[in-house]
Amino acid sequence: MTDQAFDTVIVRFGGEIGIKAAWTRKLYERRLIANIKAVLKHHNIPYTRLIRKFGRLYIKTLQADEAAEKLSSVFGVSSLSPAFETTSKLDDVVSVSIRLAGIRFQKGKRFAVRCHRVGKHPYTSQDVCRQVGQHILTSLPELNLRVDLTRPEQTIQVEVREEKAYAFTDTIKGTGGLPLGTQPKTVCLLKADVPSAVACWMTMKRGCPPLLVYFENDVVAGESAFEKVKAIAQRLMDWTIGFPRTLRIIQFGQNLKELVAKHPSEMSDLLCKRFLFRVAQRLAEMEKAEGIVTGDSLGKRATQTLHAFRIQDDALKNYPVYRPLLGFDAAEVEEFAKRIGLEDTVLKKEKNQSEVKRTKVTSIELEDIERIEDELNVEQMVEDALKTLGILRV
Amino acid sequence: MTDQAFDTVIVRFGGEIGIKAAWTRKLYERRLIANIKAVLKHHNIPYTRLIRKFGRLYIKTLQADEAAEKLSSVFGVSSLSPAFETTSKLDDVVSVSIRLAGIRFQKGKRFAVRCHRVGKHPYTSQDVCRQVGQHILTSLPELNLRVDLTRPEQTIQVEVREEKAYAFTDTIKGTGGLPLGTQPKTVCLLKADVPSAVACWMTMKRGCPPLLVYFENDVVAGESAFEKVKAIAQRLMDWTIGFPRTLRIIQFGQNLKELVAKHPSEMSDLLCKRFLFRVAQRLAEMEKAEGIVTGDSLGKRATQTLHAFRIQDDALKNYPVYRPLLGFDAAEVEEFAKRIGLEDTVLKKEKNQSEVKRTKVTSIELEDIERIEDELNVEQMVEDALKTLGILRV
Repeated sequence: MTDQAFDTVIVRFGGEIGIKAAWTRKLYERRLIANIKAVLKHHNIPYTRLIRKFGRLYIKTLQADEAAEKLSSVFGVSSLSPAFETTSKLDDVVSVSIRLAGIRFQKGKRFAVRCHRVGKHPYTSQDVCRQVGQHILTSLPELNLRVDLTRPEQTIQVEVREEKAYAFTDTIKGTGGLPLGTQPKTVCLLKADVPSAVACWMTMKRGCPPLLVYFENDVVAGESAFEKVKAIAQRLMDWTIGFPRTLRIIQFGQNLKELVAKHPSEMSDLLCKRFLFRVAQRLAEMEKAEGIVTGDSLGKRATQTLHAFRIQDDALKNYPVYRPLLGFDAAEVEEFAKRIGLEDTVLKKEKNQSEVKRTKVTSIELEDIERIEDELNVEQMVEDALKTLGILRV
Repeated sequence: MTDQAFDTVIVRFGGEIGIKAAWTRKLYERRLIANIKAVLKHHNIPYTRLIRKFGRLYIKTLQADEAAEKLSSVFGVSSLSPAFETTSKLDDVVSVSIRLAGIRFQKGKRFAVRCHRVGKHPYTSQDVCRQVGQHILTSLPELNLRVDLTRPEQTIQVEVREEKAYAFTDTIKGTGGLPLGTQPKTVCLLKADVPSAVACWMTMKRGCPPLLVYFENDVVAGESAFEKVKAIAQRLMDWTIGFPRTLRIIQFGQNLKELVAKHPSEMSDLLCKRFLFRVAQRLAEMEKAEGIVTGDSLGKRATQTLHAFRIQDDALKNYPVYRPLLGFDAAEVEEFAKRIGLEDTVLKKEKNQSEVKRTKVTSIELEDIERIEDELNVEQMVEDALKTLGILRV
């Protein structure tokens, strides 16, 4: 029932969007609004109007609590408040504030009223605070409240803006970042693990719609890995509402596996990664993506050294490799995973599975790798792999 | 005086080092200990012994508080505790705990005793907690303490390990990461701003000693920028004690500036960045560094788009560009800056200075840039710039 009480969600997106040049800001705001509309539609949250004003967005909906919660995961939103809208007449402000206190205030607690005012009005912000405070005390004696301006346990915020006023108690933190779609796509190499998903999310947060690619390797990884990747992809797609919900799957050619089996494992690691990068590069070309994203943290494993990265990246002639987790410790990656909501999708045993292969790549030089790749006819293998491309709706 | 009370610092470095393969772990621990010794020496903190045991390090010093604080910024350390060492005899554990409570406990507060025990002893962990708790109450009646095991305000931790025991109250969080020097060097392009320094620190945290390079450009940036960069470099070098404290300075050739002045600003931005990358690449070759690090966040400015990065990175033929802040919002970069201690060194007006130039690079293609570079004879300009290389001790 509390949901029906509010009539507005205030969406704030100041932060980084606010300091952009005028033409960029306009573009970003337009994209943000489109993404917000898509989320409301996806969750069947009806709204009557969506007003952009004062560098904010006011969404008129009777499901304001639910809308605020869902919109908190739209990239570019810095914070949200479910609110009552009324006119800037002091009587209206007071009565709507009493209504708000009646719904949200807990018995016997200390409270404060804060007011922010823009425009010309026949009263000061101080007047608003005083009037609202007094009327709450007299109108709701059963709540047994006490005014405390320095250490309140609950607060009513009143924002008076020109001829309108808004009253609310809660400010929900948004995800921040830049609106999805304000940057080109990236090819995200998704694995059945947390880091590849977090890395993908980090570039999404900065505006890049992801092109999720999974290299299926049923012999080594097994069926459960595929199920896990699907679950991860689904979770990630909850953050990209309004964009295609797809996972690209490439069969990790049997022939490749047989061939790399002939080489020492440290060599085959690099051969594999370079092969994946080559295929990813072709996908980027096909889909007009602008870079390849991996979940590497520096020094996490023996295959994640600067030396190994250099050999890996050399296989990509036209695209940079982006490693948003480069400087992260494992614990820092975990923190982000929680924030994204990946805890449930990825099982704990993952760690052991991926730690099995211990390799040492420091002694391998690029020339050795290139010689083997020539023998393998890697270019042909890349084309063969691309023929196995499947697109799964997730 | 409290400093003289303790005799030991317990240094924990479990985390990521602990899960490495045996030979890597040994290497990492050796490096960590060398770095720790360098910090103790740098701060003139005398110690009598340094014992590696139980995946920890026990430093015998009478300046334990100071040592713990200084060592908390050594990469690879997960936490530290200034402690009393004693034997595992219960009487000794009790008397050392009373001494500890006398120094650290505040009057009238609730306390608890926790015990962790490894090895064979004629008592249980429970016995330790009970005995220590009772004796503290009876020996320090003037403190007016109260035992509260569920919600203590202060806690004594006792660790009994074989024939030794340690008692402490505080656990200081370490910086985490991997010991500096366990990865190769990186060339860090330092500017008079926070992000370039944070990016550098992120790669340091993962083990890379930084090769700080500043491109001096007195016409555009002015003298104060150089002073700021020096201050930033000094602050960064506080995290690399034991490694060279140097800042490399390249004069940003007058001829280059004149030439780029002839091109539209969006073009000259890319020309500049590609030029810096080329010089950085030559420095990496000369100094055996393995990559170039920048403070770019995706989409932060018009010059920080995927398209721009692609054109920039193309100038580097042999090294990847690392952008550890790629997925960060400005606020996230600020958080790290505080943690690193960069707030004081970088003035607020920095933001405005760097925001002056607003450019749009989406329409520029690599071919246009390459054509201009051919005309400019960029290779020769790179060699000329390298001749201006100066190394400053910071």
